[in-house]
Amino acid sequence: MKVAVIGLGLIGGSLVKSLRTLDIATNIIGVDASPEHQEIALSLGLVDQCLPLEEAVNASDFVIVATPVNTIPSIIRDVLDLVEEQTVIDVGSTKAEIIRKVKGHPKRSNFVACHPMAGTEYSGPEAAVSGLFTNKYVVICDHGDSDLEKFEMVRSMFEKMEMKVLLQEAEAHDTHVAYVSHISHISSFALAITVLKKEVDEDRIFELASTGFSSTVRLAKSSPATWVPIFEQNRDNVLEVLDEHISVLSDFRSSLIKKNYEKFHDLICEANKIKKILK
Amino acid sequence: MKVAVIGLGLIGGSLVKSLRTLDIATNIIGVDASPEHQEIALSLGLVDQCLPLEEAVNASDFVIVATPVNTIPSIIRDVLDLVEEQTVIDVGSTKAEIIRKVKGHPKRSNFVACHPMAGTEYSGPEAAVSGLFTNKYVVICDHGDSDLEKFEMVRSMFEKMEMKVLLQEAEAHDTHVAYVSHISHISSFALAITVLKKEVDEDRIFELASTGFSSTVRLAKSSPATWVPIFEQNRDNVLEVLDEHISVLSDFRSSLIKKNYEKFHDLICEANKIKKILK
Repeated sequence: MKVAVIGLGLIGGSLVKSLRTLDIATNIIGVDASPEHQEIALSLGLVDQCLPLEEAVNASDFVIVATPVNTIPSIIRDVLDLVEEQTVIDVGSTKAEIIRKVKGHPKRSNFVACHPMAGTEYSGPEAAVSGLFTNKYVVICDHGDSDLEKFEMVRSMFEKMEMKVLLQEAEAHDTHVAYVSHISHISSFALAITVLKKEVDEDRIFELASTGFSSTVRLAKSSPATWVPIFEQNRDNVLEVLDEHISVLSDFRSSLIKKNYEKFHDLICEANKIKKILK
Repeated sequence: MKVAVIGLGLIGGSLVKSLRTLDIATNIIGVDASPEHQEIALSLGLVDQCLPLEEAVNASDFVIVATPVNTIPSIIRDVLDLVEEQTVIDVGSTKAEIIRKVKGHPKRSNFVACHPMAGTEYSGPEAAVSGLFTNKYVVICDHGDSDLEKFEMVRSMFEKMEMKVLLQEAEAHDTHVAYVSHISHISSFALAITVLKKEVDEDRIFELASTGFSSTVRLAKSSPATWVPIFEQNRDNVLEVLDEHISVLSDFRSSLIKKNYEKFHDLICEANKIKKILK
């Protein structure tokens, strides 16, 4: 199968790596606005050639849109304007806005909306890694609006990658990712800023990283190019969970202020319940 | 060297594992209030025997106090009441309160106040792991109050464990750990509670864990028995950095409310500066 991947970053790059390893992709065409990304992707062998979008779509059987989420709707519309039989997927972390904006397109059913739920804090084609998606979940949204055969093809492709496929409505998906994934990123970004502000001695930060800071702050290295559009598209859900998070932190604060260590103990026990879900 | 370890948990257990591997400890005596912990430590071979505190101290050359930080001062005083030539260390995560409470003891100079800065989210003797401290930092506080020879012996012991030794005053140490380590724990505890409150569907939490939540929430599994006393002893420093953290989260919140995505972008760029320190 000839695959076009639009957006040569962590997710697009890792995805085509897997497709090549599994012999699902025989030929991979890259599309990226950045000549530097094109060059790196070519030199790493992620793609066989780079072409402008229209040529890439015309030359392929399968199109992956893996750009920042704010650019996905218009790219998908452009791609759908060009396709005949090709299947088109996106891999964005938000889904409702994207699906809303492609609604009613005459080729809507060629499109399958996907969110492979894995990542790292790194970005760009050099961040692409084999096996990123193995044993991870992928959500396919509003699959009833996709052509059944194309949907089954996409599902089977993810299953060959050893991913677990979930079906969800886009609105529900966006709420769930805000509640778990997006708040984790804000929490980590805010922790980084807090520590950089308070601990002016960088050596101390480095020395103390092993006390737990390094894992908690890992996501704070995530790129604004990827994440600002996600927060923009999922603003309302994120605000709701962020309010809750600030309120929980205020509970910790007030129990410290009141020297109410029993309450503090109870809060930690409440947090410990996460062990039931994540071993 | 005969070693007594008081408190058979993650840190005490991991430490004697290293000392045994390096042949620094030829005989290890465990002391623990919990018969269950004694039994596990014996069955895991962490210790050769378990004895009551007085007998253990009398039978050893080197005493490690590795109990929750609120119990350390009185245990150290009890141990110092018993010792002749033995060297005594603690491994608590806070130092000022402990050092204040042993001040003026006639055997104060037998004591070297230490904080080996490593850990995991697990606790108890079964959580002890070899190599936990390799390449990590250890802080020795107020070493001028310790006998020079004993201090040098302790320093050399940590260096044989491939640890990097830092010397700090206790007050400064406590401020630094609040600013980096302790706030990371509160942030993680609060994230766990937030997600558990908002995301009532546990399956969704599990499925989404790979999106970054699992690393950010790792510390939320940490035990209240260890951590409540740490927050109690380091309350003022923790409150200061917690206020800052809530204020930074409020900046994220207000930029979302105002749809000021440029500001949101700037905040992420500020957070990204952590990459300079932690690769």
